[in-house]
Amino acid sequence: MPAEFHLRRRVQFAETDMAGVLHFSNYFRLCEEVEHGFWRSVGHSVVLQDGEGHISWPRVSVSCAYMSPAHFEDELDLVFRVTETGRKSVSFEVSFDRDGARLALATIKAVCCEMRGGRFKSIEIPDDLRQLLETGRSGE
Amino acid sequence: MPAEFHLRRRVQFAETDMAGVLHFSNYFRLCEEVEHGFWRSVGHSVVLQDGEGHISWPRVSVSCAYMSPAHFEDELDLVFRVTETGRKSVSFEVSFDRDGARLALATIKAVCCEMRGGRFKSIEIPDDLRQLLETGRSGE
Amino acid sequence: MPAEFHLRRRVQFAETDMAGVLHFSNYFRLCEEVEHGFWRSVGHSVVLQDGEGHISWPRVSVSCAYMSPAHFEDELDLVFRVTETGRKSVSFEVSFDRDGARLALATIKAVCCEMRGGRFKSIEIPDDLRQLLETGRSGE
Amino acid sequence: MPAEFHLRRRVQFAETDMAGVLHFSNYFRLCEEVEHGFWRSVGHSVVLQDGEGHISWPRVSVSCAYMSPAHFEDELDLVFRVTETGRKSVSFEVSFDRDGARLALATIKAVCCEMRGGRFKSIEIPDDLRQLLETGRSGE
Repeated sequence: MPAEFHLRRRVQFAETDMAGVLHFSNYFRLCEEVEHGFWRSVGHSVVLQDGEGHISWPRVSVSCAYMSPAHFEDELDLVFRVTETGRKSVSFEVSFDRDGARLALATIKAVCCEMRGGRFKSIEIPDDLRQLLETGRSGE
Repeated sequence: MPAEFHLRRRVQFAETDMAGVLHFSNYFRLCEEVEHGFWRSVGHSVVLQDGEGHISWPRVSVSCAYMSPAHFEDELDLVFRVTETGRKSVSFEVSFDRDGARLALATIKAVCCEMRGGRFKSIEIPDDLRQLLETGRSGE
Repeated sequence: MPAEFHLRRRVQFAETDMAGVLHFSNYFRLCEEVEHGFWRSVGHSVVLQDGEGHISWPRVSVSCAYMSPAHFEDELDLVFRVTETGRKSVSFEVSFDRDGARLALATIKAVCCEMRGGRFKSIEIPDDLRQLLETGRSGE
Repeated sequence: MPAEFHLRRRVQFAETDMAGVLHFSNYFRLCEEVEHGFWRSVGHSVVLQDGEGHISWPRVSVSCAYMSPAHFEDELDLVFRVTETGRKSVSFEVSFDRDGARLALATIKAVCCEMRGGRFKSIEIPDDLRQLLETGRSGE
């Protein structure tokens, strides 16, 4: 089963706007928090060091559908799920739930890249990372 | 012809991340800047007062495709274009260009709402606003 | 003894800048997170409702001294301490520690205000809130 | 006369919070925008390349006093003034004015650093930069 990870996260004051709700752009920052939480939970930082460079996951495309607003101090359940693992890219979704009801659903497609000297170069997803994405656990 | 509006906007330091590029979530903040710039250009604030409440445009869904990263101090040309005006909602896109090349393309669908007492209620787009969205100019 | 509250908080990717460190402005957002965490810990939201309006704490002055940078994924210990409770205002500091070493120290002076119809009006700190600030616990 | 630089800047929606005002932490992001605008105005990027590394200006200490709130779409006049140029550090202030009235005053002390391999090392301010800070113009 593809990787899944949960994070409980409260909406902070500075993340709201004058309409009194979580600003729509901040959902993507929360997506990244739960994504990075997943990587840490399996023993990897999202910014990996492989001797010669860093592996990074720049975004190819993202989307979000908003069903109901989130407010200051709401406790959100962020549910991260890998939906597809390609040769060089991964797609995942994040559901924003509150008390069991979905407030929003975001999707992110990211490409596996090596960073050297400030430049991104796409690479095939290394086997150990692929296994983590496809199964949520490491090989051993 | 549907409304169109251009904004020149430099990438600020605090909008970059440790990968050295404009953070992907910040594209949506820039979308909103050019959207609000459009409304001001036609003599409206996006937060309108209609006597009894405010008209606001909460987002139904958004997306962004990223072709090439933007860096600190890059001067971006943000091109806002209305793509569809429905009965209660509007869809627009924002192209992020640098020196004539597109770096990213975002879409936003927003619904016309009346805000009263901290609650959003969807309404039909008032005629004067509809005309501005559909033609980029007011009736008189 | 004046109120004190601790919060463990990881530095997120979007909070870093292209220098690879927690952006200096974001320390103040973290100050607010631990401040609001304190209020919740004693059973109050920072946005209180007192029947007719809200109590809010706009800032009069803030400062921060930076000793050493914080990096992505660093786990910070935020230590919130009330340093002075005036008639209408409260001063507090937040220490940013990592593995027992202080990275930064911020101070905030905020004034107790009633918000009605979008306007702030300074008021004397209500007795129950004053006691919470001065002792970290409620009267009963 | 020490360097001075002005920037006109509108408060954006995403910079407000649910209290309806410019969030207090965002004043520091605006400080940085006008600071970087100054450097560009004299032909330098704040992220300089000197062949072997980058010159960067990490912050030692900052402060801000808030007199009156700023609201969405307010047009602010940001006035950047160098107040002291030391051997390795510079201090400047930024006044936030609206229609001639000061809303806030911020101060920032930053140290001149060379960045190599992700580490900051303080250095003496190079002569050409010192002259720009002390006089607002270059030597030639």
